[in-house]
Amino acid sequence: MTIGSEVDALCKVPLFRGIEATKLRLLASISERIRFRPGEHLCSQGEPGDSAFIILAGQADVLVATENGQQVVARVGANDIVGEIAILCDVPRTATLVAIDEMDVLTISKENFLKLLKEFPEMALKVMRVLAQRLEKATRDFGAATATLAERASG
Amino acid sequence: MTIGSEVDALCKVPLFRGIEATKLRLLASISERIRFRPGEHLCSQGEPGDSAFIILAGQADVLVATENGQQVVARVGANDIVGEIAILCDVPRTATLVAIDEMDVLTISKENFLKLLKEFPEMALKVMRVLAQRLEKATRDFGAATATLAERASG
Repeated sequence: MTIGSEVDALCKVPLFRGIEATKLRLLASISERIRFRPGEHLCSQGEPGDSAFIILAGQADVLVATENGQQVVARVGANDIVGEIAILCDVPRTATLVAIDEMDVLTISKENFLKLLKEFPEMALKVMRVLAQRLEKATRDFGAATATLAERASG
Repeated sequence: MTIGSEVDALCKVPLFRGIEATKLRLLASISERIRFRPGEHLCSQGEPGDSAFIILAGQADVLVATENGQQVVARVGANDIVGEIAILCDVPRTATLVAIDEMDVLTISKENFLKLLKEFPEMALKVMRVLAQRLEKATRDFGAATATLAERASG
């Protein structure tokens, strides 16, 4: 794929709405487009994390290891940014991502991701919004699960 | 409290480690220090959110409304930044914060918070790291609760 068509694809990602084409051109030039087939792992929990993923097409399950085996905690799809926790927090991958269908994914290295966020504050703000939205959902889901557990314990 | 002693207090907050004193001086000048007594609400779920909180001292419970009443989902304390989800996502407060003991809190308006993040990318990166850490914890907690629910359903 040419840089031009890569930029066209990035323009359609809500995360990059309002970001100038010249900046998207830079993003396209420092990222790599990878195709994942159903069942393939984008990353595995516990491994070192050296890149973030911007999903252009397809879906993946987010699995977390628990005492009772792996649990699906979320599903991610087109326009989602994932895998950035390991990069931001300097911790191993916190979840396993498994492709459900054929996926088109833009991978960006830790170094370039951090550089991008520092140089383009509006992109940083957008990533922050995505993190905040996911945190809001995770907190709500956890609250509901805790309430169900409390209800069953007292019932 | 003078701006000077406010800056001294901010220097000790890990979130602002490495941030130049001149920038902390700006933060101190555009934020307001408020004291909360035990039982007082810093914010209430469902209300419009127009400020973020940086906790300097004391602790608060984070409560989320569920079908079975309010559930404590987390506890926050000194050096934590909270209340930024409503600001970043333009949604009402996603949780209620209740002071456990006497609290010293720096409140910063939505407008100033967003301005600060745009102007100081290193601060944005630190806020992003905090969000990512909380997301990692919330995802882990939710995974554990889901596993317990699945185990009880099958047991």
